[in-house]
Amino acid sequence: MDTLTNQRWIYIKRPSENVGFQNYQLEQQQMPTQLASDEVLIENKYISVDPYMRIQQSSCDSWEPPHPLNTLQSSGVVSKVLASNNTSFEKGDWVSAYTGWEQYSKVHASQLNKLDPGNAPVTTALGVLGMPGRTAWFGLMEAGKPKPGDIVAVSGAAGAVGSLVVQFAKKAGCKVIAFAGSEQKCQWLKSELDVDIALNYNEFDTYQSLSEYFQQHHLKIDIYFDNVGGKITDAVMPNINRRARIVICGQMSQYNGQLDKVELGPRFLQHMLYQRATIQGILARDYNHRMDEMLAQVSPWVKEGSLKFEQSIVKGFDKMPQHLASLFTRHSKGKLLVEVGK
Amino acid sequence: MDTLTNQRWIYIKRPSENVGFQNYQLEQQQMPTQLASDEVLIENKYISVDPYMRIQQSSCDSWEPPHPLNTLQSSGVVSKVLASNNTSFEKGDWVSAYTGWEQYSKVHASQLNKLDPGNAPVTTALGVLGMPGRTAWFGLMEAGKPKPGDIVAVSGAAGAVGSLVVQFAKKAGCKVIAFAGSEQKCQWLKSELDVDIALNYNEFDTYQSLSEYFQQHHLKIDIYFDNVGGKITDAVMPNINRRARIVICGQMSQYNGQLDKVELGPRFLQHMLYQRATIQGILARDYNHRMDEMLAQVSPWVKEGSLKFEQSIVKGFDKMPQHLASLFTRHSKGKLLVEVGK
Repeated sequence: MDTLTNQRWIYIKRPSENVGFQNYQLEQQQMPTQLASDEVLIENKYISVDPYMRIQQSSCDSWEPPHPLNTLQSSGVVSKVLASNNTSFEKGDWVSAYTGWEQYSKVHASQLNKLDPGNAPVTTALGVLGMPGRTAWFGLMEAGKPKPGDIVAVSGAAGAVGSLVVQFAKKAGCKVIAFAGSEQKCQWLKSELDVDIALNYNEFDTYQSLSEYFQQHHLKIDIYFDNVGGKITDAVMPNINRRARIVICGQMSQYNGQLDKVELGPRFLQHMLYQRATIQGILARDYNHRMDEMLAQVSPWVKEGSLKFEQSIVKGFDKMPQHLASLFTRHSKGKLLVEVGK
Repeated sequence: MDTLTNQRWIYIKRPSENVGFQNYQLEQQQMPTQLASDEVLIENKYISVDPYMRIQQSSCDSWEPPHPLNTLQSSGVVSKVLASNNTSFEKGDWVSAYTGWEQYSKVHASQLNKLDPGNAPVTTALGVLGMPGRTAWFGLMEAGKPKPGDIVAVSGAAGAVGSLVVQFAKKAGCKVIAFAGSEQKCQWLKSELDVDIALNYNEFDTYQSLSEYFQQHHLKIDIYFDNVGGKITDAVMPNINRRARIVICGQMSQYNGQLDKVELGPRFLQHMLYQRATIQGILARDYNHRMDEMLAQVSPWVKEGSLKFEQSIVKGFDKMPQHLASLFTRHSKGKLLVEVGK
């Protein structure tokens, strides 16, 4: 084989509100199969869609400049080696990498991470044993500093990161309040993930009514692990406990347009003063170098089954933009992955 | 003398917006001069008015329940001992205490702090060597963690706390941007306190125009020491640097009503995430037990004249509510004190 036909999703237009097909173009590329020294050709079997991708599409710099237009949409992938010009990898190996929404990629061996399917399902490299796991673990343990008996509130609790945070918090002896967007997710959080309280925020018309719920139940939040922002944050802030730790991991409610337009919300910094609380923003990449530490702790839990890692694996490479968009409206739980069909 | 006529300001009505005479009543009390064991009778010579008093008048709990109605307005005082039933204090001694807006107080000796007028002006016990000094020192050094070369933005920079923070930051080798509400204060900040940039926020119509100032001058804020909140915070947040430390010491722009009503402002938590920044609320009382540590560091600077401590000493015990109100509109600089005339 001299060339492969490689389908790739090119990011062509910045979304102003919801992201979708209009922001992408599916391109066919003839990819030469010849490999440079230490290069590896991989077939991407599972491709990740993550909320951070929508941040990178806002017009302002975040932790880096916006995702460049007219380039491949970048993403994590779990892949099989098709050919290798490096002694550490051979055909048939499972690997994870950071390439993008395409069927095949050529990657320098140093950028590949070999996976052992006997250890855990390979897809966990994009979830519990990958970026979302790292974010949940270090975000909660290092920034949140949980102590037994702490009340931990988690927004986006049924998502890839949130569903791990609630379990890590339970393992740390905390009482967990989980926020999710549907009754079905709340049921799952209670029955499967053993959270103490699961609240469907859509059942509260205003942030004030959610805030009143806390007051009525005498719930003072010690740790707020926030993936969503907006109304939930508005309700939590007046109900934080002395020395509360607020971890900003995501602001999903703001991603579809509000990062550019700026939404208004109630001012709350006086509560930081009253309670001498802290807010800390965290990002997965800051803990890249401590991946082994996380894996040493979390892998055994995955193996023994004491940590649940829900995966929503959907098919349809031809609908990648739609899968990304679905993160903001979906009914599925845990980590969303796209399986690339034949 | 068997009794003294003691005039006292009783807090009688919660303000909904600006505080003033309508919220207080001047009462005459016949105070028996007889002293219990270890009790000391003091004549209050200087009485403090501080922004935190207005927080205590909001309807919600802050760090404690609201200031009770129909009681003496509590405050710091600097006083002279008139009579003592404790061996550590004698007539004529200067002391500081926490009593209230009244001419005379009876205080247990354990609640008094003896002052040495040879060391520094006694009024500094309510300013640079008292609560405001402690707040500025620990707030900047512990929560702000200044490093040489850091850009430090200070709101309310001409106030009791802010005017010390800017000087501590300069001593730590930082570049200081000071915000104040008049051209005259800005001039003073530049000429007397040696700040690098002084900005009159009233000259900026919107937070966006202030934010653009930062962008045009490529100013990325490493530390934001916030006494004011509101528009200044709105402008700073999009311009924080990687790993910025934001210290919430006060939110003066919110005190005259907005703590009860809740004002809307632009959401900004995404910037905490982008920059992996922290916000920490601080309160003077948390550092009470470390007062000696602050004094050991700061007193020599006061004595040698390398730290300026501006005091605005006004007369008129009969106008105490007006002096408190003036904190929110005043043109004076540094620590505001009321001298109790004969």
